[in-house]
Amino acid sequence: MAECSEFELIARYLTGLGAARADVELGVGDDAAIVRGDHGRCVFALDTLIEGVHFPADLPAAAVGYRALAVNLSDMAAMGASPLWALMGLTLPWVDEDWVAAFAKGIDGIARAHGVAIIGGDVTRGPLGVSLQITGSVDSPLRRDGAQAGDQLWVSGRPGEAAAGLALWQANQRHQPASQGLVQAFCYPRPKIALGQSLAGIATAAIDVSDGLAADAGHIAEQSHLAVVFERAACRASARLIAQVGLNQAQAYWLGGGDDYELCFSASAAARPAVEAAARQARTAVRPIGWLREGQGVWLDDQRLAPGQQAGYQHFGQA
Amino acid sequence: MAECSEFELIARYLTGLGAARADVELGVGDDAAIVRGDHGRCVFALDTLIEGVHFPADLPAAAVGYRALAVNLSDMAAMGASPLWALMGLTLPWVDEDWVAAFAKGIDGIARAHGVAIIGGDVTRGPLGVSLQITGSVDSPLRRDGAQAGDQLWVSGRPGEAAAGLALWQANQRHQPASQGLVQAFCYPRPKIALGQSLAGIATAAIDVSDGLAADAGHIAEQSHLAVVFERAACRASARLIAQVGLNQAQAYWLGGGDDYELCFSASAAARPAVEAAARQARTAVRPIGWLREGQGVWLDDQRLAPGQQAGYQHFGQA
Repeated sequence: MAECSEFELIARYLTGLGAARADVELGVGDDAAIVRGDHGRCVFALDTLIEGVHFPADLPAAAVGYRALAVNLSDMAAMGASPLWALMGLTLPWVDEDWVAAFAKGIDGIARAHGVAIIGGDVTRGPLGVSLQITGSVDSPLRRDGAQAGDQLWVSGRPGEAAAGLALWQANQRHQPASQGLVQAFCYPRPKIALGQSLAGIATAAIDVSDGLAADAGHIAEQSHLAVVFERAACRASARLIAQVGLNQAQAYWLGGGDDYELCFSASAAARPAVEAAARQARTAVRPIGWLREGQGVWLDDQRLAPGQQAGYQHFGQA
Repeated sequence: MAECSEFELIARYLTGLGAARADVELGVGDDAAIVRGDHGRCVFALDTLIEGVHFPADLPAAAVGYRALAVNLSDMAAMGASPLWALMGLTLPWVDEDWVAAFAKGIDGIARAHGVAIIGGDVTRGPLGVSLQITGSVDSPLRRDGAQAGDQLWVSGRPGEAAAGLALWQANQRHQPASQGLVQAFCYPRPKIALGQSLAGIATAAIDVSDGLAADAGHIAEQSHLAVVFERAACRASARLIAQVGLNQAQAYWLGGGDDYELCFSASAAARPAVEAAARQARTAVRPIGWLREGQGVWLDDQRLAPGQQAGYQHFGQA
């Protein structure tokens, strides 16, 4: 029997569990859940990182700690939310005090930089991994399902660099001077909190790029019941990515590489000046890369990309 | 070098991480963290269960799902809180759809019974484990650090049965009719939500019994800067526990066995009628088992128990 993907597992068995509560505005299926209280909305996300699956076994402890919070902050960014509090479940195969001290320093630094308090959690014995849960607040959440036909598709930063950085890391080329920028993009991704907040009321949908740009834009399209079209002419990998891996591989990373934690979002064509102003305010580079249209699927100009061609990261095999 | 315990790890490296936020009323170190908003307090807890560490590899999937939420509900009970929303990080070595369906059914049932919505989470590939985070609301939280010298110490239910149930499970005696009650106590612990809520304003401190009664009462004592004394005459294991494992082993389980998820709490001697009324209202049996006094440590009458004699569950070795 073919294995189903984690998306199918979640859709079939893990959606809508528990009580139906009137205060839950958005449950499973977006970057974060939204609950509505008397005083506004809170958003909740949880991400798990497992050694050897989500990060290489030889990644420095400080980068593991940084990453555990960064990927959750990125979920807050994709909702346009302000992060507040986090809880951490840390599973360790044994006690290595130096490792734990460096891990703690890594998470502490990024938490302070974003005003997040680590308020609790759990430490257990087992295979190395971290589950981190974050709570934030938001007025106008950016959901995945709000894109309209005709909207432009945008992305921040330099997609593909993190995937190339991971490949360089795994190929033991991490210390070469020319690799540093890409390795850094993998080890210390910068969640786009300010950009997410400044896009509130401007973007019609948003997602963070964790699985890969094509796959993640595909989630916006699917949940908005639309097709997404990448303009081939706009698929421009960064100069240092092309210099390091060549044009063809750079474009493959650009479209399919995960772990960037950039924001991919949609906005009406008329909102282009507002998008550009919001990006300037957040001091974050953004670029239009395509559009949404009636239909379904992920397209590169007039060529539809099969799920395998999108090459987004999935933890389990595809049927 | 001696390994430090998880309590020492947390105290040395994992406390006070991130920003110092004025809205955090209680951080790392209790059953749950407390944050204060405009409209009251929210409590946050996160617990991780790892196969082979927190549950046997052959525990049915439904019991794993049930347990993942039950241990977190128990943290809400120990705070006197009302549980609201949960997020779940599920790590699976491979896709076994039947297992996931049964797991989902287990968590769904207990979530509905307590009005909790499962609003999000993450599914990843890796060694089998679940990290579950829960949020609740509370007016008058029950903390660990509020016990006063002279307070009585109480416990709900029948401590020790779960530890005996686990031993019977591991000894393959799980199907014997006489084992059923104890095995059930391990597989389906019942979080004491109603009791915790009814003790608000009555109990001075509370904790749930996860590590073992002596160890957990010791946490109340330590955080309240007191000693806790168990009265030997009050150390009464249940009849079915004694019948199954004998008097001596039953008393050892009573004092040192973990996984009960009963509530252990303190209250002034004058509050005894109020405690008994609260327990009746919650339809939960409670019993006085000792008291708090000036000093430190965990005592059985006039004999001080060393940490090894408390036999609480710890994931890492003791120095």
